[in-house]
Formats: sequence, structure tokens, C-alpha cells
Amino acid sequence: MPTPIILDCDPGHDDVFAIWLAAGSPEIDLRAITTVGGNGRLSHTTYNARVVTELAGITGVPISPGAASPLVRRLTPAEGIHGDNALGGPDLPAPSVAADPRTAIELIRDTLDQAEQEVTIVATGPLTNVAMFVRAYEDRLSRVREVVWMGGSTGRGNITPYAEFNSWTDPEAAAIVLESGVPFTMIGLNVTHQALVTPDVLARIGAIGNRTAAFGVELLSFFNTAYEADQGMPAGPLHDPVAVALVAAPGVVGTVRARLDIELHGTETAGATSVDLTGTLRRPPNARVGAGIDVEEFWRMVEAAIRTLA
Amino acid sequence: MPTPIILDCDPGHDDVFAIWLAAGSPEIDLRAITTVGGNGRLSHTTYNARVVTELAGITGVPISPGAASPLVRRLTPAEGIHGDNALGGPDLPAPSVAADPRTAIELIRDTLDQAEQEVTIVATGPLTNVAMFVRAYEDRLSRVREVVWMGGSTGRGNITPYAEFNSWTDPEAAAIVLESGVPFTMIGLNVTHQALVTPDVLARIGAIGNRTAAFGVELLSFFNTAYEADQGMPAGPLHDPVAVALVAAPGVVGTVRARLDIELHGTETAGATSVDLTGTLRRPPNARVGAGIDVEEFWRMVEAAIRTLA
Amino acid sequence: MPTPIILDCDPGHDDVFAIWLAAGSPEIDLRAITTVGGNGRLSHTTYNARVVTELAGITGVPISPGAASPLVRRLTPAEGIHGDNALGGPDLPAPSVAADPRTAIELIRDTLDQAEQEVTIVATGPLTNVAMFVRAYEDRLSRVREVVWMGGSTGRGNITPYAEFNSWTDPEAAAIVLESGVPFTMIGLNVTHQALVTPDVLARIGAIGNRTAAFGVELLSFFNTAYEADQGMPAGPLHDPVAVALVAAPGVVGTVRARLDIELHGTETAGATSVDLTGTLRRPPNARVGAGIDVEEFWRMVEAAIRTLA
Amino acid sequence: MPTPIILDCDPGHDDVFAIWLAAGSPEIDLRAITTVGGNGRLSHTTYNARVVTELAGITGVPISPGAASPLVRRLTPAEGIHGDNALGGPDLPAPSVAADPRTAIELIRDTLDQAEQEVTIVATGPLTNVAMFVRAYEDRLSRVREVVWMGGSTGRGNITPYAEFNSWTDPEAAAIVLESGVPFTMIGLNVTHQALVTPDVLARIGAIGNRTAAFGVELLSFFNTAYEADQGMPAGPLHDPVAVALVAAPGVVGTVRARLDIELHGTETAGATSVDLTGTLRRPPNARVGAGIDVEEFWRMVEAAIRTLA
Repeated sequence: MPTPIILDCDPGHDDVFAIWLAAGSPEIDLRAITTVGGNGRLSHTTYNARVVTELAGITGVPISPGAASPLVRRLTPAEGIHGDNALGGPDLPAPSVAADPRTAIELIRDTLDQAEQEVTIVATGPLTNVAMFVRAYEDRLSRVREVVWMGGSTGRGNITPYAEFNSWTDPEAAAIVLESGVPFTMIGLNVTHQALVTPDVLARIGAIGNRTAAFGVELLSFFNTAYEADQGMPAGPLHDPVAVALVAAPGVVGTVRARLDIELHGTETAGATSVDLTGTLRRPPNARVGAGIDVEEFWRMVEAAIRTLA
Repeated sequence: MPTPIILDCDPGHDDVFAIWLAAGSPEIDLRAITTVGGNGRLSHTTYNARVVTELAGITGVPISPGAASPLVRRLTPAEGIHGDNALGGPDLPAPSVAADPRTAIELIRDTLDQAEQEVTIVATGPLTNVAMFVRAYEDRLSRVREVVWMGGSTGRGNITPYAEFNSWTDPEAAAIVLESGVPFTMIGLNVTHQALVTPDVLARIGAIGNRTAAFGVELLSFFNTAYEADQGMPAGPLHDPVAVALVAAPGVVGTVRARLDIELHGTETAGATSVDLTGTLRRPPNARVGAGIDVEEFWRMVEAAIRTLA
Repeated sequence: MPTPIILDCDPGHDDVFAIWLAAGSPEIDLRAITTVGGNGRLSHTTYNARVVTELAGITGVPISPGAASPLVRRLTPAEGIHGDNALGGPDLPAPSVAADPRTAIELIRDTLDQAEQEVTIVATGPLTNVAMFVRAYEDRLSRVREVVWMGGSTGRGNITPYAEFNSWTDPEAAAIVLESGVPFTMIGLNVTHQALVTPDVLARIGAIGNRTAAFGVELLSFFNTAYEADQGMPAGPLHDPVAVALVAAPGVVGTVRARLDIELHGTETAGATSVDLTGTLRRPPNARVGAGIDVEEFWRMVEAAIRTLA
Repeated sequence: MPTPIILDCDPGHDDVFAIWLAAGSPEIDLRAITTVGGNGRLSHTTYNARVVTELAGITGVPISPGAASPLVRRLTPAEGIHGDNALGGPDLPAPSVAADPRTAIELIRDTLDQAEQEVTIVATGPLTNVAMFVRAYEDRLSRVREVVWMGGSTGRGNITPYAEFNSWTDPEAAAIVLESGVPFTMIGLNVTHQALVTPDVLARIGAIGNRTAAFGVELLSFFNTAYEADQGMPAGPLHDPVAVALVAAPGVVGTVRARLDIELHGTETAGATSVDLTGTLRRPPNARVGAGIDVEEFWRMVEAAIRTLA
């Protein structure tokens, strides 16, 4: 039986592939999509989620907008990577299906209430919505099986030397979710920087031949160009679907249990995810942390999922 | 026409008088009560709100529980002042009316949506619920006329040398509300430490002669004993109703416009409310800050309000 | 027998009166003067110390320059109060006696080594020099009887809402000295804001009739004008000599033992001196803190000291 | 002509090899050794420096003790790696030559004053002494050619997930030195974790056959055992001599110019060295940072240097 998930995201090029991987994986039952300000403003990320689900023929999945801003800090969208509308590159066909009238946390609540079993939340943006759900509906937390988050790093960051963008954008939210008691898995840059959009990857997706794949290639071309200009990486790392892949096929991403603490007060390091891989701090482990990835299998899953779409 | 308010509180002895002052003041239309963890655990503060409204004959005011914990930090209830159940002293008669099934932020949303005009939020506890409302229902913020908060101080604190309890409990929430764009008024210890429960005050309330007053005297006797033991103040300061009094009769509490910043990162000073009364920082004012109180008129209002209750 | 002291200062108008009070008080034996960057750049504060000792006929007291900058932070001289050269107002006659060739901490070391008894350090600027002495000559700390510091506040600050200028300039230095084990006394704004240069004070000093007094009146006239413009106080508080007065006549300044912690990490509150007057934090007292002043007696001492000078 | 250096260290096993490499390299003229609390208490590190110079037949190099404690923080010696006396393993023969009577910063001052050219400071412990020199003798800074520091990391740390021990011990000192204007080179764990004491290295040093080498093998055996127990590394990284090697033979250690900021305020990350290798922060470079090492050549240099000793 497929794993029911709620996908909380900020599309964003790589979020799009997370949505498609979730919708196209037989092991996953995508129940709801919630959006958050992150890679772009909330208005853009919500619009983009609507565009790319409809374009891919994904139906029946409600999309609700959540928090426009991080909890405590100000939003700085990642325009250098994702462009002005968070989804630079292709023309975006106007979607015909409206967003769900509920807010993100209301949609999460209802999705959990209606589920016959625990539901996994896969989050691929700042954890603002999930943190708000934790505080607003504490009595529903037992309905959440796990939070799997693309964010953080066990090593270097990408927006500052030690902080990854999602974590840096809302470190307080990450801390809230981490300390909520819900099982927590962090898939950080140390893993996702292996999921590179190489020319071979581009060629394989291009060869799929459907509308979704063609749109995806446009996205990835823009993404690679932006990553090279902004970060000096000619093949951009497709972060977000790695978190979905872990849920779809646990063996594809290696994890370890470790102590994770989020830096909330550093001047240079706010949002750094301090992962004690060696037990030096002598604190009990509180998270599962991504440690490796089967890159071949990951891309095979992405390709297979897109083949199932429109 | 009376001012419609939502009272967000954590009863707590002084919160009770805030509820009674709001319900018994002709200038105020109390539309909803929301509760938060603060002086006591959420289960206690919600229960206490139900007890003291029913005991005072206040009907038709929905009571919804909100956040059990501060946004980012851990709750340390003020048991030294308020006892184990947040309302030490009298026996608490079991209430017959249930809490509203909506959460605090849902009740705030609905109250705003149903109001024919802007509504004032008076908050007398940590600002957790109000901060969550700000992030969850940003599109409704224009419906909030003002947030009037009992919290902070322009001088010394009461839980640490520079932090007041409500601010110290959830400084991040205070910062969120302050920066939300909603007009913000802070009534701090520099004002409320003048609203002392002197023997004369106790005698005047005792002389009212109704059930509410008798219960109130029991509360205040406990409160004064606790304040003397915990803070060395034989006449305790009845903080929370001062915020209500400002809304009911603006002239009773003097205010100034000033720059207010909440300390989020200090080791010794987290939660300190940095109020630039002299303009030294050369930042634009962003809040109204309580600066004085007509103590006589304040107690007259409290007394008059209780006389209208059961 | 007079108390031997080393005066570490950053003249600065009020530092000048600290020097004169120390040199003119029979209860004090001024052994050395060391200077630090604070109210002005080190070059100015050193020059000013030389000017005002020579002008007042003080001889045989070596003057050594110390740290030009705070330990970790950058110096922002208090030009709004003290002018561009840290001693705005009178013409400064060029001094004929050179500074001592030793550095401040070398002079402190030698002064201690040559003293027949323990020596008190009175510091009226940022504690940079004293902190460096603590770390550089730890084996000599037992020769220091006490550090008496003008700095900090038990209430509001003057450079930010909660920080006093000396403490804000070098909080790390203050923390080092406080934790050094040497007995520590803090005389903060809560005391010094009572030592106001009223018209009566100005008239009394003007009536002394010697060269020092005439120069002093020029200083105080500038000081009052600057304080009114910068802080809205028409009679400026003459902070620094209060610390000297405490050493000369312990009864003139009231003190309490309390817990003192220096805020090193706050965004809004760096340098705040968190003084736990009520024992709320339940930490052991570690300092003596100024709590009151006999204003009449203080000014009488200042007047009497200046009468003994040139 | 050999490069004159002052070696500021906290021996410590790897510091010993730094001393020996400096004394035995024809490209280096070791003028003075200063000691600091770090790997062990100051009394131990000073004693150890005296032991290992005398044992190796190094004469005429004055050794002065400096700061016993970090500037602002408390010292936690690295006993898990270096043992109770900072030099666990061999019996330490009592040295016959006393320490120099000057303090560390006095010895640095005199060494600079007596040098016919600029002198390089190689620091292999917390930067406390160097920071104190910066503030105490600011007028002598132009006599320092460069500070080369073993400390920090461009990636993960060893005492916390993001902080290296020397940097974590005294981050404020590192910030002071970095911002002093003296050219600054950081050789961090990203480099030194390649200088591993493999069985082959042990065998080569053992084969040298002199007293120094025999003592060194005892040190390295203890060191490897401790590293395996404490950090899970069977071949310990010999950090400190890498900084000396860079001065002796610049080609042996690769460096890049980059922006370096020291985290002073983080709860989890204090002491992290934030190195912006990709220019993301858009701040001007302010340091040279170690990026690679010719491991073979490094060990060849160490071996050759020890061969020249007793």
C-alpha cells in the first residue's frame, strides 16, 4: 500500500520534480500540497504548484497556500537560482484549477483527520508551515508518521558557509519541528549535492517524450545555468526530490541516527544544522540524517515517475 | 458604541480581573476569549477562563484554547506567583459550559470575519496565539484594529533583571506581532507596578458584596501572599486589567510613541523590551508604550465592572 | 593612611573631575594614571590626562596609554557628549611633561610591584586595560585590593535603552574583570544620574577661584550643553568622580552585594549589566553594586579637592 | 636566509612536532617560544615546551608563558586527546633550563624589537597570546610579517560539529587577530586531517634512531590511541606542524584567499570559522586559508627536521 504524504513545498525548480516524483511513484499516495514562501514569494510558489500539477495531469490533490514569511525572520527569495517568479525558464501556462480555500495548516489538519492511517509530511522548503501546524494542532501530531525534510547539511551550506537555504530562511521553524516529538529526518546538502543534473540526466529526461518531460527539461536548463552563475556548479543539484525518493524507496537514501541542533543565535551561522556524527557532544540522538544516496537509482525513479505523467 | 475586543489570556489571577473588567465595562464588547500557556499550562489556563466567566455570570463569550507552548522556547509556568493550577487560592467550581471546539486562531479568525468593524486584541499573556494568527491569517490582519499587550517593561523586569514574564516566555512571538504592521501598544511593568493591590483596594472589592467580588478577594489574598514571598512586594501589582483599562478609557493610561525592539538573542536579557524613550537609536517609532496610569480611576473602573457581574 | 589607587580613565569631562578628586582627596594616594580609548580616541584621552594633571599642578603621577580599541568590538567615541577631542570646551594648554614610556598594563604591574600594600584600581572608562592586565599578569591579581568601576546600570542605559556607554563599549572586558576573582564594585547610572551639574554646583565650583576651578567650569558648561542636546538633560550627570568618591569616603555611596552578569550576546542589549537585586536568578552574589549617593557630601568632596589644586 | 618566527603553542603532542620542525628546518629561524593554555593548563604547556626543546638539544630559544585562560571563555583542556599533563605517553625528563622571566607578550615585543626584519608568528594553540599582543602593543604590529595559525576548518570541526578546538577555545582572540590588519593565514582541519600518523609514518620516524625520534614515537603512539578512542580515527591527524611547514616551504600547503569570519555568538557553533570559499557573502577576502597539502613532502620535512635534532 502506498505511503500517504502531504508535500509542503516552495516551487522552485527542484520542488517541481519533488511533486512529480511524488505523484508518479506507485509507492506514494500524494494527498495534499501546501505551499510556503521560500525559493520565491508565496504568491509565486502557490501559483507554480498549481501550474505544474495541472500540466502534469495530476488531479484531485488540493493545493493550499501557507505562510508568506518565515516565523521570525524576513524572507529573501532565492532569485539567483530560481528567477523572479521562482520558476524561471519556461512559459507558465495559466492553471484552470483554483487553490483550495483552506489555509495550509487547515488542509494538513483535514488531511490527517481524514486519513485511515498516519501520514508522512515531506517538506522541501522552509519549515514554517509545519512549525505552525505543530503549535496550532498539537493534538493532531500523533497522526503524523514522520517529517522528512530537504534542508540543512552535515557539512558546508549554500547560502552562507555553514547554512543551507531552507534552514537559514527559517531556523526557528526547523527547531520547532525538530523538538515536536514527531520523528524527523533531514536530507541535507551532503546528500543532495550528489543528485546532479548532468548532461546525461538531461538527455534521459528529454528522451521521455511527454509534455511534462519537455517542460522539465526547460526547467533544468534554466536551473543549471543559474547554478553555474550563482554557485559555480555547472550541473545543479536537484535537492528536493531526494526527500521524496527516501519515502518512496527507503533504500535509495542512506541515513544515520544522530544528534541534530539548529543554530538560532549565531551571527555568521544562523540556520546551521549542527549534526553530531561522532557523538562528541554526548547528547542523545534526536533525528535521522541523510548520509548517502544511490544516484543511479534516484534518477531512475525520477525518470520512471515522469513517464507516468501527462 | 463599545469597542469590540478579543481577550487572549493565561489566567492567572490578574487575567481574571482583565476578563471581569472587559465583561463589566460598558465601553467594551467582549467577543471572544482565547487562552495560551503562560502563567500556567494551557489546560489550567483554559479551565480557569471557563471557571471565572461562568462564576461571574458572563455568557455568550466563546473560549478557545490556543498554543500550549511558546513558539520556540520552553514554557516555565509562574507557579511561584500563581500556584500549581495557575489560580491558587479559592476552590474552583467545575464549569458547566464547554470550551469552544475551534482553536484560538480559528476563533480569532471567525470573530474578525463576523465583526462589522475592526476588532482590538487585548493580550495579557505570552503573545504566542497572536503571533500564530499573524502568520496563519495574514490576509485578516487588516481586520485587527490594534493589539494591546500587557508585557515588557521600559525599565527592570520581574523574571530576570531586564525581562518581564510574558515577554521572556515568548520573545519571538512578541517580535512577530510587533513587526506585523498591526498597531501595537505595550503596557509594561513600569505602568503595572503602580496598580498595586493595597489593603484599601482589597477592602473596596470586598465591600462590593457579590459572588464575583468574594471570589476575587480570595484570589487577591493568595496573589499578595505569593508576591510578597516571591518578589518581596506585599501589595502585588495587578498587571493584566491595566491593558483592558486602556481600551475602555484611553485617558486612564498614559502612553508615548517610541521605538520598541525585542531582545531575541541575549544570554541574560532574552525577552527584554528595549524601548528607546529618548530617541538615542535614531530608529523610527513603531509602538505605543504605556508611561503612566491614573491609579484611582483604574481601581474605580475595576470596582464598577465587578459590581455589574454576578 | 590614604588608599593607594591607580586611576584608569578616558578623559572625557567627568574623568577630569575623577582625576582631580583623586589627586585632591587626602584619603587617596594617586599612584598612576592609565588611559584607554572610550569617550575619545586613545591619543586624545592620553593627551587630555596630561593636560589636566599639569594644569592642576599634579606632579609625580606617571601617565601611560593603554588599549586604543575595545577587546573585541570597535570603538565609537562619545563625540556627542565630549566633542571631537573628548574634552570639548576650553582651550587645552600643551602639556610639558611626557607620557610614561611604559604601556598601561606595564605601569599597573610596576605600580603594584612597588606598593607596600594592595592597590585599588578605579576605572572610569571601558575596562579594556584592566581586562588585559588580568590576562597578562594573572600572578599579580592578588596585589589588587579591588576594582571600582564607573559603568553599567541597574536600570536603563544611556547609549542604548539598557546599556551604559562604558559597558557597551567593551562588555567582554567587563566580563573578564568581573570573573577575575578580584573584588568588584560597579557604580552605575542609577547612582551617577543623581550627581547632576546643577546651576548651584556650577556656581560653587566657579567660586573656588583657582585655575583648576576656572578650567573646570568651562568643561562643565560644555558638558551641560552637550548633555541637554544629546540626552535632554539640562544638568549633566558627572559620572566618573562618583567612583573615586566611594573609595575616598565609603559612606558617600551606598552599595549592595548582588549578582551581576554582563550581556555579551544580545542584539539590542549588548553591554547591559544584569543586576539581580531581588535574588530572582538564585545565583550567588559576585559584586558590590552602587545603590545610592549622598549628593551633598559628594559635591562637597569635589569642591574641597579642587580647592587643594593649582 | 631563514624566516624568523615566534612559535606560540600549547604542547600538546602535535605542538611538539611543530617545535621540532621549526627548530630543525633550515628555512626557519626559531627566535622564541611562547605558551598558552589550550591542550592543557598553562603550567603543563610551558613545562612541556621546556622538556621537549631541551630533550631535542634546542638551545638559545627563550620560552615564556602567556595567558592561562582564553580571553572571555573558560578553558577546557583537551584531556581526551592529550592526557592529564597535555603530553601523555612518555616519561618527561625534568628540564634544567628555566622559563624566560618575561611574559609571552613581553617576549614577543622584545623579539620583534630586536629583529632586523619582520617576524612571522606561527600559532598552534588558541590565539589568546597573539590577541593580547595585538591590543597591548598595537604600535609593534607592523613588525609582524604574518600570523600563521593552525586552527579552524572550512568544513566540519572536532570539538563541536562546526568548531575546531583552538578556535572554539578562544574565538574572541581569533577575531581580534583576524581583524588586526596583520596578514593572517588559517590552516584548518580540512588540511590537517590529511596529515595522518599512519603506521608508515610511525615506522619512518622510528627509523631515525636519535633520542628525539624515540621520544616522538612514544608521543605518537599515545596520540593515535587517544584519537581512536576519542574521535574514532586510528591514525591521528598531526595538526600543528602543518602550519610550520607552510612557512618553511610555502609550496607544501596550498592556500586560497577568502573571507573568514569567526562565529562569536552561536549557541551550537561558537568558534566556527565561516570561510566563504565561493564568494556568496560578497564580502572582501581578509585571509589566506589552507586548502591542500602535499602529504609526502610534509612528512619528509618532519623526518628531515628530526634527524637534525639530538
